[in-house]
Amino acid sequence: MRESRGFSTTTGGEVFFVHLHPDPGFQPIEWRGGVLRFIDQTRLPGEVCYVETGDYRDVADAIRRLAVRGAPLIGIAAAYGVALAARDARTDLHDAAAEIAATRPTAVNLRWVVERTLGAADRAPASRGPAVEAEARRIHQQQVEDDLRMGALGAAFIEPGATVLTHCNTGALATGGIGSALGVIKTAHRQAKDIRVLVDETRPLLQGARLTAWELEREGVPYRLIVDAAAAGLIAAGEVQAVVVGADRIAANGDIANKVGTYGLALAAQAHGVPLYVVAPRSTIDLRTPDGSGIIVEQRDPDEVLAFGWMRDTPAATTAFNPAFDITPARYVTAIITECGVLRPPFEAVLREADAGIAVPR
Amino acid sequence: MRESRGFSTTTGGEVFFVHLHPDPGFQPIEWRGGVLRFIDQTRLPGEVCYVETGDYRDVADAIRRLAVRGAPLIGIAAAYGVALAARDARTDLHDAAAEIAATRPTAVNLRWVVERTLGAADRAPASRGPAVEAEARRIHQQQVEDDLRMGALGAAFIEPGATVLTHCNTGALATGGIGSALGVIKTAHRQAKDIRVLVDETRPLLQGARLTAWELEREGVPYRLIVDAAAAGLIAAGEVQAVVVGADRIAANGDIANKVGTYGLALAAQAHGVPLYVVAPRSTIDLRTPDGSGIIVEQRDPDEVLAFGWMRDTPAATTAFNPAFDITPARYVTAIITECGVLRPPFEAVLREADAGIAVPR
Repeated sequence: MRESRGFSTTTGGEVFFVHLHPDPGFQPIEWRGGVLRFIDQTRLPGEVCYVETGDYRDVADAIRRLAVRGAPLIGIAAAYGVALAARDARTDLHDAAAEIAATRPTAVNLRWVVERTLGAADRAPASRGPAVEAEARRIHQQQVEDDLRMGALGAAFIEPGATVLTHCNTGALATGGIGSALGVIKTAHRQAKDIRVLVDETRPLLQGARLTAWELEREGVPYRLIVDAAAAGLIAAGEVQAVVVGADRIAANGDIANKVGTYGLALAAQAHGVPLYVVAPRSTIDLRTPDGSGIIVEQRDPDEVLAFGWMRDTPAATTAFNPAFDITPARYVTAIITECGVLRPPFEAVLREADAGIAVPR
Repeated sequence: MRESRGFSTTTGGEVFFVHLHPDPGFQPIEWRGGVLRFIDQTRLPGEVCYVETGDYRDVADAIRRLAVRGAPLIGIAAAYGVALAARDARTDLHDAAAEIAATRPTAVNLRWVVERTLGAADRAPASRGPAVEAEARRIHQQQVEDDLRMGALGAAFIEPGATVLTHCNTGALATGGIGSALGVIKTAHRQAKDIRVLVDETRPLLQGARLTAWELEREGVPYRLIVDAAAAGLIAAGEVQAVVVGADRIAANGDIANKVGTYGLALAAQAHGVPLYVVAPRSTIDLRTPDGSGIIVEQRDPDEVLAFGWMRDTPAATTAFNPAFDITPARYVTAIITECGVLRPPFEAVLREADAGIAVPR
């Protein structure tokens, strides 16, 4: 284990980078007695770099620049971020929480988590620090358990010998547990189902190439990387038996907001009779949004498209559109797998039950 | 103008690199009295680097490593490559032609061009050098004229104010003329139709980001770059009025082989009532292939996916599938625009006419 030090770009305070490469296991996020420790995912797979901080502004910054990403992991980080803010009596907790909530506009559970942790603080004004910390730990632990449940429910749909296509990263690096969609894949692999995985590289930030490949390699799951644009042709060629993806937000009618490119996969899957499973915790359900047309799609910095790592690949004057998500209408979704059960269309009633925490029959 | 020298990787012979950056105009390929001069497209947009060579093996190598790419430009380069081989009486012309023909398996006009130039040599055994050179020049000149014709025919389908989405590079850098699909876009722009262009970056080799952006910038056409996976969502959002692409091969029934990702665009275009125009010279038509299932899809080096420029972005053990093309069934194609006219479905009969060089009524 090698340690190095660096400086936080937001606070100017000192943060610690602990290099752990190669390393058989990893904790994407961890609370260690008043200090939050998380992997800086922008540096994977080249470096496994842990950031430790006691400042909530570092957490907000990490979410903003995708050092911590994936809706459930963002939620956990946000909860711990509020916990860090709550420890310091001089911090205006609502301002801090608002800053954390504003980091990413599309993930609904970010706002849900912030409200929940603020509620814990409001109920215990004299000891808001420990109260929010306990609530954040509960949120984290719950996610770990929910991931195992989703993994078991979803793996039942993966046939032995199947090739599964997935997009972006929905693993431990996205949830803090075993993952949502990637948790299903890991669970099927642990059940010795002899599966293979096709991984979309997931431009512009390459979460598939950098993060999913890294997790699958550690898990020993056979996989191959493809460019995103190759998926439709491979589905048409019969190379894919199931498409398994996560979700950043699920509208009341079952429309799905997920990483840009998901809708194209849905079109191809439906055109060739391949099932599309969406695996997402119930915190992703947003009943206040009737359908996909009401979901704000985050537009990210064009430079993510124009430059690749440090290299600019386009003429100097080129600009880009960079929507981070797209909307997949509910009619393309075979099933939504949550910790409350497997939801089948029509989704309206079962999403209301799952949102209320009611177990849905399989 | 700055000159530098380098060494050909294939022949060990000296080649000349002429840097011309910035430069208002450019010639993607040019025959200069026994020397072939072409832009090394792998170095765009950073450098406009011309390679000059008298050795057909450098031409084969350039096609193989995509320094020269795009089915029509490959054809022109191949014709000049055979002409270079024919100049040297010691060269076995059929061996040289076979080497050139084997560089890329999917483009049908590569084989057509090689047969045509070999035919010219066979008809003039005593003066095969000048005969093949003249044939190659005719092929090049014909492409320039055909591009203008396709541009005019295709621009008629582009509405004023439209946003057109395109994939890969189908411009001057792909054909040697004004381009096929990009020629249509340029023509519509020159007609002051106030169009805008969404350019798929086109992974893995970024022909959209590197080459199409470069050509559109020189032409003054307003454009924005997107990641390939963003196209479906933008089409669904009503941001696109027409999808215009090229083709590497057109089967007898109208099925299209084109740069990987085209099929996904076709699915999205059809789902949202957006027309899909395929712009390709008749040399792309392959009547000997009944439908798309008979088209060999070139599988390229996984390293094109795994590494981006000089940077590797994946874990060390990662492997990739790298199909260079996909097949778009004819039922997704609104029209095929050739220099012989605009072909509408059903395509069988009109493709036979166009292949025979018969003008098709608009």
